[in-house]
Amino acid sequence: MMGVDILLERYRNGDIFALSRLITLCEDGEYHFEEPGVENYHVIGVTGGPGVGKSSVIDRLAAKFLDDGVRVAVLAVDPSGPFTQGAFLGDRVRMRDLNTRGVYIRSMASRGILGGLGPAVCDAINLLAGFGFTRIFVETVGAGQADIDVMNVADTILLVMAPGMGDEIQILKAGIMEIADVYVVNKSDVEEASFLRGQLEALLMMDESGRSRQIVNTSCVLDRGFEELKMVVEKHYADMVSSGEIAERRRRRKRYFVTKLVMKEIQESLDSINIDGLNFEEIKKMLCRRFLGQSM
Amino acid sequence: MMGVDILLERYRNGDIFALSRLITLCEDGEYHFEEPGVENYHVIGVTGGPGVGKSSVIDRLAAKFLDDGVRVAVLAVDPSGPFTQGAFLGDRVRMRDLNTRGVYIRSMASRGILGGLGPAVCDAINLLAGFGFTRIFVETVGAGQADIDVMNVADTILLVMAPGMGDEIQILKAGIMEIADVYVVNKSDVEEASFLRGQLEALLMMDESGRSRQIVNTSCVLDRGFEELKMVVEKHYADMVSSGEIAERRRRRKRYFVTKLVMKEIQESLDSINIDGLNFEEIKKMLCRRFLGQSM
Repeated sequence: MMGVDILLERYRNGDIFALSRLITLCEDGEYHFEEPGVENYHVIGVTGGPGVGKSSVIDRLAAKFLDDGVRVAVLAVDPSGPFTQGAFLGDRVRMRDLNTRGVYIRSMASRGILGGLGPAVCDAINLLAGFGFTRIFVETVGAGQADIDVMNVADTILLVMAPGMGDEIQILKAGIMEIADVYVVNKSDVEEASFLRGQLEALLMMDESGRSRQIVNTSCVLDRGFEELKMVVEKHYADMVSSGEIAERRRRRKRYFVTKLVMKEIQESLDSINIDGLNFEEIKKMLCRRFLGQSM
Repeated sequence: MMGVDILLERYRNGDIFALSRLITLCEDGEYHFEEPGVENYHVIGVTGGPGVGKSSVIDRLAAKFLDDGVRVAVLAVDPSGPFTQGAFLGDRVRMRDLNTRGVYIRSMASRGILGGLGPAVCDAINLLAGFGFTRIFVETVGAGQADIDVMNVADTILLVMAPGMGDEIQILKAGIMEIADVYVVNKSDVEEASFLRGQLEALLMMDESGRSRQIVNTSCVLDRGFEELKMVVEKHYADMVSSGEIAERRRRRKRYFVTKLVMKEIQESLDSINIDGLNFEEIKKMLCRRFLGQSM
């Protein structure tokens, strides 16, 4: 296997295959990339129930960014059940247009407990930002822990909804509603979209957090609303930069990343100890020896 | 507040209020009781969907044990949502008959992530066993992580089902089916019970694990099947003792207990560190200092 040093050198010289190899090493837990070394990049989390059109929205929004000459990457987090560990990834067949325009697209399995995001998602974000991508989408599947987790890694969170899916109740229940910065009413060409929009506006009126939240109607069929969506997303980022909140979001991501890494390594260290006959204090001491001795 | 030493002395002298106070201290994370100091006790996990009659089954089965002159305790794990932390316990109004016959009944909140069992459940089991209770029921609500977790703390696992609840599919999906040692078809006086029993037998026929698994029909209305259930449960315990598997189950509980404790303390230690500007190796070192410095 090629050494990490050589891969890193090639990565720094703009070798996209080295980037991919490094992400794979991070997924396998053999390497971690802690700091992107740049400040100017925007992580856009995109979540929402199945079938609402998340990929299509990313597709259209990314195209708008590309028109502005911006470099775009997409991390798609696929779920894997708590018992299977493996992921049913396969090749990503959608988003083909983006591929041909130089967008980097990568599927990652969510290996964490109950489908949460693993630390490798943070590695990948850092690697992509360090590589020069300035708009990084993180797409989650809209069902479970990964969607709550996305708030810990993204600077701006888009919640995509569509009329007649009945998903708003599910999403409300799961607590995903509260974490979004921008609500996208997709398939707004469908008649019932105005009903969904009405529900959303009513819900946001009840919100007392004082956070600025926007609703944007989009339609992939009519190719409508994506310029507005781009402006709203860009403005959210600009506002965070000028208010200094961006630093807070990045601190949150680092803390999340560190916590995930620590918990994973602690679990591995603990699994390697024979605890028979040891009391808790003895186990703690042995655990720390293993944990600190473990190579990154 | 009364010191732990005084409480422990009273506990050892058979003071049930001291027992309760110690369990509360464990729930609050202020104390841990690592070893019961006895071998002869049987932890019976009882799980199943809402409305299948878990409490009634425990009620009748406990009565059978009481008739044999055995001391019985019940830990009922109530769920609390991942966002609320608190629990909606209230006083336990069921099982009143047991209370008057000297059964110790205690509700515990499942405070862990996504409703899993917390370390305090293991503390409580150890405290109850050390106090002289030889049949300890752990009841979980049959929806989520706590039910998977129960396999890590119980010696024998009862899965209670009832006809016409449609819960078998849910339970299969959640992976709870595989963890049970005894399947209780409750409400067997209802006509559709034979259909459920048929489904269960078919499912167990497909099981290739080689584990011994029993199905028992019960009916609280007819007060039928509980003598058989008691025999099956007692035989499962006796078989584990003679085969030595009981030691394996207790090792599993200790490992589970230690893991829960470690993860909780690591999280607390990590939350107390300012990680700004530190790299992962520096964070690990500081974390271990905090972790080892933390008092139990």
